[in-house]
Amino acid sequence: MCDACGCGHEHEYKEIKTIDVNQSLLKTNEEAAHSNRKHFDEENILAINIISSPGSGKTTLLEKTIDALKNDISIGVLEGDIETDLDAERIRKKGIPAVQLTTGGACHLDSVLVHKGFHSLEHQLKGIKLDILFIENVGNLVCPSFFDLGEHARVVLISVPEGHDKPLKYPKAIKTSQLLIISKSDLVPHFDFDMEKIKKDALSLNPSLKILVTSAKTGEGLSEWIEFLKINLK
Amino acid sequence: MCDACGCGHEHEYKEIKTIDVNQSLLKTNEEAAHSNRKHFDEENILAINIISSPGSGKTTLLEKTIDALKNDISIGVLEGDIETDLDAERIRKKGIPAVQLTTGGACHLDSVLVHKGFHSLEHQLKGIKLDILFIENVGNLVCPSFFDLGEHARVVLISVPEGHDKPLKYPKAIKTSQLLIISKSDLVPHFDFDMEKIKKDALSLNPSLKILVTSAKTGEGLSEWIEFLKINLK
Repeated sequence: MCDACGCGHEHEYKEIKTIDVNQSLLKTNEEAAHSNRKHFDEENILAINIISSPGSGKTTLLEKTIDALKNDISIGVLEGDIETDLDAERIRKKGIPAVQLTTGGACHLDSVLVHKGFHSLEHQLKGIKLDILFIENVGNLVCPSFFDLGEHARVVLISVPEGHDKPLKYPKAIKTSQLLIISKSDLVPHFDFDMEKIKKDALSLNPSLKILVTSAKTGEGLSEWIEFLKINLK
Repeated sequence: MCDACGCGHEHEYKEIKTIDVNQSLLKTNEEAAHSNRKHFDEENILAINIISSPGSGKTTLLEKTIDALKNDISIGVLEGDIETDLDAERIRKKGIPAVQLTTGGACHLDSVLVHKGFHSLEHQLKGIKLDILFIENVGNLVCPSFFDLGEHARVVLISVPEGHDKPLKYPKAIKTSQLLIISKSDLVPHFDFDMEKIKKDALSLNPSLKILVTSAKTGEGLSEWIEFLKINLK
């Protein structure tokens, strides 16, 4: 048998202390989120926080959104990543101002970082007023769910290749979002993917959740996504 | 302009405090990991920690591995998830003992939880000696990279639909693993996926990394994966 038994108390003590400090950090985050939201409201900016696993198609969705909207409204993007500014570069190639928020190891954005990033973005805008601010979170379906960034709407993407079981396994992301986008729908024929089950499970966790099925490849659902944004514009 | 400016000092203070406590937690984790590894060594059990984003195919890989090996060697599985015991159920259906470690919100397994889970697994085994213990981590490409569980090898999966840019964006997972499995290779024709680039980027971060390309659908790479396990068996 194992001689590590009996050391659980110290671990539990340390874990509780961490939770206390994290509670304090969450409170700090909440205050800055409130301030961000007030700021966005005052300037009539719609702020959208997009969360998902790595590779669910957040940046691709933004690229398609920019193509559809950039002639009508003013868009800015904050790009969250642990390392690299690859995603901000993709957005800038579309002629849209983007600030890369590199967390350097942290697994989610927080509202203080968003606050700082938004000021950098304002600097790039040189007086042009934004209509929509997209905040692309770090690719992670867990931790970003816990951090309000001051957004008006949280959008969670789950792509078809990830599987229909993800809402029940990652409930916090579903419970705290207003919209679920089931992306890469063109891949349904290649997977044993139960579209009815994923919708039913997601709605069981969050009955007021709106759900869209999209494909950047075929264009499915993109007009409904654009409609969702237009309805929510300030 | 925004009235949240100037409050950065307090945030930074709180963040530093959190890091201190997390350092202590990591140290506790390290001690329990060392104890776990010693225990596995004493019992000649090969422990494999599998990490990836949600839906990269960890459980499917385990199902295929069990099919290939269960008549020759004794296998046990610890299944990490935030909620549900869906994955442990899938493993048990294959006739293999599995313990679900539900983290209840935490975004990764830690070595204390693995220690407790392993004792529960031993209870199910009723004296049968394990050859391999698979530890399927919570679906998250970020946080699990920071926690040694006492494994002998860490395996990271990145599936083709996630994109070839993931090693550079999630470097810690690549740097701390011995094997990268590029899964769902049957989907390459449906994506703009640069196989050479993902391999090159991964090796630039970790020159001693072994890389396998697999598909549970076509069977590509599975015999090499089984070979990797057999070579590492105690």
